[in-house]
Parts: sequence; C-alpha cells; structure tokens
Amino acid sequence: MTITLSSATLPVFQTALTNLGHCLKKAETNAMARSFSPEVLVGLRLAPDMLPLASQVRIACDAAKNGTARVSGMEAPTFADDETTFAQLQERIAKTLAWLATVPTDAFDGREAQEVTFPIGKEATRTMKAEAYLKHWSIPNVYFHVTTVYALLRQAGVDLGKADFLVGAQAAA
Amino acid sequence: MTITLSSATLPVFQTALTNLGHCLKKAETNAMARSFSPEVLVGLRLAPDMLPLASQVRIACDAAKNGTARVSGMEAPTFADDETTFAQLQERIAKTLAWLATVPTDAFDGREAQEVTFPIGKEATRTMKAEAYLKHWSIPNVYFHVTTVYALLRQAGVDLGKADFLVGAQAAA
Repeated sequence: MTITLSSATLPVFQTALTNLGHCLKKAETNAMARSFSPEVLVGLRLAPDMLPLASQVRIACDAAKNGTARVSGMEAPTFADDETTFAQLQERIAKTLAWLATVPTDAFDGREAQEVTFPIGKEATRTMKAEAYLKHWSIPNVYFHVTTVYALLRQAGVDLGKADFLVGAQAAA
Repeated sequence: MTITLSSATLPVFQTALTNLGHCLKKAETNAMARSFSPEVLVGLRLAPDMLPLASQVRIACDAAKNGTARVSGMEAPTFADDETTFAQLQERIAKTLAWLATVPTDAFDGREAQEVTFPIGKEATRTMKAEAYLKHWSIPNVYFHVTTVYALLRQAGVDLGKADFLVGAQAAA
C-alpha cells in the first residue's frame, strides 16, 4: 500500500482523539480515587492567559474536524462549546470521531494541490495547498492541543505516561 | 504532486524542529530581557517526575532522527546528551536538521510496508510497518516533546503564541 492523503490524515486524527479520550478517562478515574470532583480538572490552565482544559479538548476536536471538512468539502457538525464535565467532553470526542468515520477516502485522495482557505485569528485568512494544510496546520494543531491536555493532567498528578498519548488504551497491554 | 512517505514526514520533522529552535530563541531573549539566566529555563520541569526542558529538546530531535534512520536505513549521528545552554540546544537542533537535509526522498518512498523494529523502554521492542511507525510513533513523538517545551516556556512567562509553534519565525510576518 502506498501512502495517500487520507491514510496520512484520517487515522492520525482518529488515533489522537481516541487516545485523548483515554487520557481523560484516566483523569476522571484518578480524580475520583483522590476524592475531588473531576470537574476541577476541566477548568485547569497552564498559565492564566492560556485556555482551560475544556477548550483544549474542543480545539483538538475542531482542528481534526475542520481540517477534514475543508479538504473534503463535506459539511462538519457544529457544537455549542459548552462542555463542563468529562462526560460532555467524551461526547464531543465521540461525535467528532463518529463524523470522521463517515468521510470516504476519495474525499481526500488526489486533492493534495487543492487550495484551502481558512481563518487565522478573528479577521485574517490564510491559503495553503491541502497536503501542506493538513501536515503543517491541522495535524500539528491536533497534537498541540492533545499534548497540552496531557501536560495539564500530568502536572495535576494524574498517572499518565507517554504511552497513554501514543497508543491509548493499548498502553496497559 | 501526490503525497509520498518522504513528503509526509521529512518536511514535518524539519518544520517542527525549526520552529522549536525559534521558540527557544524567543525564550533566551525573553530571559535576558527579564534579567535572569536563560539556563534556568533549560532545567524546568512540568512535574517533578517529568524530564526537564533540555531532555524534551533532545528527545524531539531524536524522535525525528531515529524515525528517519530506521526507515531509510541511513546511519544517524549520535550526540552526548550533555547540553546545558540554549546555544548547545540550538546546536543539537541544527545538527539534526543538517543530517535530515542529507536524506534522499527515495530512502523513504515506497517503503510504507517495510517493517521497523524499535526499542520501547529499556528492554522491550515493538515492530510496526514504516508508514504506521512514522505517522503513529515518530511524528506524534516529535510534536509531543516540542509542545511540552512550548508548555514549559509558556508557563514560565515567555511570550509565545501558537503561531510560534506552527509557523515559527513567520509568526511575526
């Protein structure tokens, strides 16, 4: 099998978000074992001017969703961005994964050179070719926000290791 | 142009490490402006049982270098892992980038299904096909450690934004 734009992208989004869900599940379990409300973790920030954990999860999901929608031309679901519990964050991830699973590979493959225009910040846009957009924008964005969640949880004392990030539930195997 | 194993990998490593160097340069400048030794930042940890910033930089470089070496069969340079200053960390990144620049695309392309065996931890190994190894192991490892450096610096008050991570020196443009 030769690599394709879909094989380079969709399984990457799916694995990163699945493992994010795994890390959040461990965090919730850990909070209960330590007898504090898991929702405390949802509001944690690495710095006062950084977004809290809930936003990091939302943006990780949206980077995958929007990258996929912009290249494939498919319409992505929208969300209210109002999650305050682990259950709601898991639902956000599950809905994103469910939608990604509906995207056919031929909505990606062959579109490497197609131009994609996307918002940066509130007023500007940027245009990149689809391959560059996915590998230099969408994928690093997903990893950036998933790793930020990992950093927040790790700093809060949750028992995570890099294997939880890389292979998720297989980490224990 | 159709995506290839080399186009999906080498520019990703190169961009991530170049932007890491950019973030470290901003950190060093910031420390000097705030009148403390930049080397203080080199020893920061997100948690007592996480590796310090210098190790995060080393592992980001090595994930790119080892991923490339294992798929291409080329011999990668080795380093002493003794960096204690920003200048030394920048040299580590520069040497890694210089070596990556010598790797021909045909040392990657067509090798998607080639099996790669690599160490996990101190005693075990794991075997994956090259495409999966690069996209599910090497690339996420690079982003994991680069983002951890970003998190450390951001938490220490360095004036970074996500654009520094995504586009590096172009962020100011």
